[in-house]
Amino acid sequence: MTLFRRAVIVGTGLIGGSLAGALRRAGIVERVVGIDAAAAPRALALGLVDETGGWDAVSDADLVILAVPVRATVEVLVELAPFLDAKALVTDVGSTKTSVLTAVSSNLASPSRFVGGHPLAGTEKSGPEAALPSLFEGRRCVLTPTDETDPAAVESCSALWRAVGAVVQIMSPADHDRVLGLVSHLPHAVAFALAAAVGAGISGSQAGLYGGGFLDTTRIAASNPAMWRDVLLANRAAVLDALGRFEDELGQLRAAIALSDGEAIEAAVARAHAGRARVLGPT
Amino acid sequence: MTLFRRAVIVGTGLIGGSLAGALRRAGIVERVVGIDAAAAPRALALGLVDETGGWDAVSDADLVILAVPVRATVEVLVELAPFLDAKALVTDVGSTKTSVLTAVSSNLASPSRFVGGHPLAGTEKSGPEAALPSLFEGRRCVLTPTDETDPAAVESCSALWRAVGAVVQIMSPADHDRVLGLVSHLPHAVAFALAAAVGAGISGSQAGLYGGGFLDTTRIAASNPAMWRDVLLANRAAVLDALGRFEDELGQLRAAIALSDGEAIEAAVARAHAGRARVLGPT
Repeated sequence: MTLFRRAVIVGTGLIGGSLAGALRRAGIVERVVGIDAAAAPRALALGLVDETGGWDAVSDADLVILAVPVRATVEVLVELAPFLDAKALVTDVGSTKTSVLTAVSSNLASPSRFVGGHPLAGTEKSGPEAALPSLFEGRRCVLTPTDETDPAAVESCSALWRAVGAVVQIMSPADHDRVLGLVSHLPHAVAFALAAAVGAGISGSQAGLYGGGFLDTTRIAASNPAMWRDVLLANRAAVLDALGRFEDELGQLRAAIALSDGEAIEAAVARAHAGRARVLGPT
Repeated sequence: MTLFRRAVIVGTGLIGGSLAGALRRAGIVERVVGIDAAAAPRALALGLVDETGGWDAVSDADLVILAVPVRATVEVLVELAPFLDAKALVTDVGSTKTSVLTAVSSNLASPSRFVGGHPLAGTEKSGPEAALPSLFEGRRCVLTPTDETDPAAVESCSALWRAVGAVVQIMSPADHDRVLGLVSHLPHAVAFALAAAVGAGISGSQAGLYGGGFLDTTRIAASNPAMWRDVLLANRAAVLDALGRFEDELGQLRAAIALSDGEAIEAAVARAHAGRARVLGPT
């Protein structure tokens, strides 16, 4: 069933390329156009998009998806606004929502047709070569409509994500940013610091000495620097709050170790077990 | 080729059970005996050991492997010392080495026949039901002989680990504890605090909202509380030092975010990439 006639995806890297491929595979869009100076020709060669284009391709689109790093999203909104059809559904895939929605209010003629989106999917890789049309299957996609958002736009956007296999969850932009600050941005900040500290602490002859724990806890430390610079800055307040919560908890564990307090260490591990189960939810 | 006539494995949980199964599969031990009030009968039922026994089983063994949590290792050394043949090779699999070697010096009649060992393998699971005879294939096993250790015992112990597929690395006990404090104990402490902080920060209706980053960084937060209490206490000084290095690095990242200093954030991510590459080593 065709839901959209012509989709323009701005940014055809890991997420944009995966979504392009997923939309084509789901058969819900007649034609998928990629706008991305560097990556769109590669996405075309990989069969993820039907064609590449410039900003003028936006004027004929009934679906426009912004899949660029968070900071670039604001710039892209300014660039594409003059070309945009007032009835087109516009959405994004950024990891933070408040900053994008502020930019939408100031730059789009029809902010009611914008639905903030964030699929909780991805890998530490980047670029269209890492794209997978199956990337969103079974994953959550958060949509963050505001009081101004057209309910029909929210329904269209939900249908789009369901068509590529995602489970849609509606949240306010502020709740989204607070929760993602905890479940995603904090783990990245911690993984960055962990990988850097461990690497700086060992000598060259001690390379190669690690177990699955180091590998797993630092896998996301290999993530893209520019993308994460933007996410951490765009969600600055929530990330700093999450860091504070983490530092409090780590401080308790450090004190327990320093005091050789075995019971307090076990209590910290018990809180870890309970906390992880709470985040994973009933399965 | 048979290397040992009769191996006694004290503690037949994840690591002891896996090693028992691996030794049997490699065919380098004629008979494998498990000593473990709770787990040895289960290990026998699972085909990991040939028989179960009590301390008297030690008297006839030419190989004794201690595979109990670090703190219990000291108690076990005291229990088995009266039964031990002076020529038997004794080794362990504990995550810290200095504390065990101190106990060896005070409790064994032939400390020269003890070789400290630590296979860098394991999962967040425990018990013989989680044991895998393939657990050590391609993984490092650190051996920590001292000036007092019989070179022939080191060679026998190396042959044992190579026979089950591990890559043997020789280090001093102090170096081992310092490096493991960084590459293993620190990631566990961080994962415990991360899982606890994130779980405490979300509401029940926000359960289930997470990506692969949270899953990976907190997988080891599900590890056994008593085992990790013992490891963190046994390697207290090195763990506190590693925590200090991590806190310094996280403090730099926190300051960069607080100051909205994008360049400093990118520099922190670059240190993370370099640090991880340094730990993984040339591949």
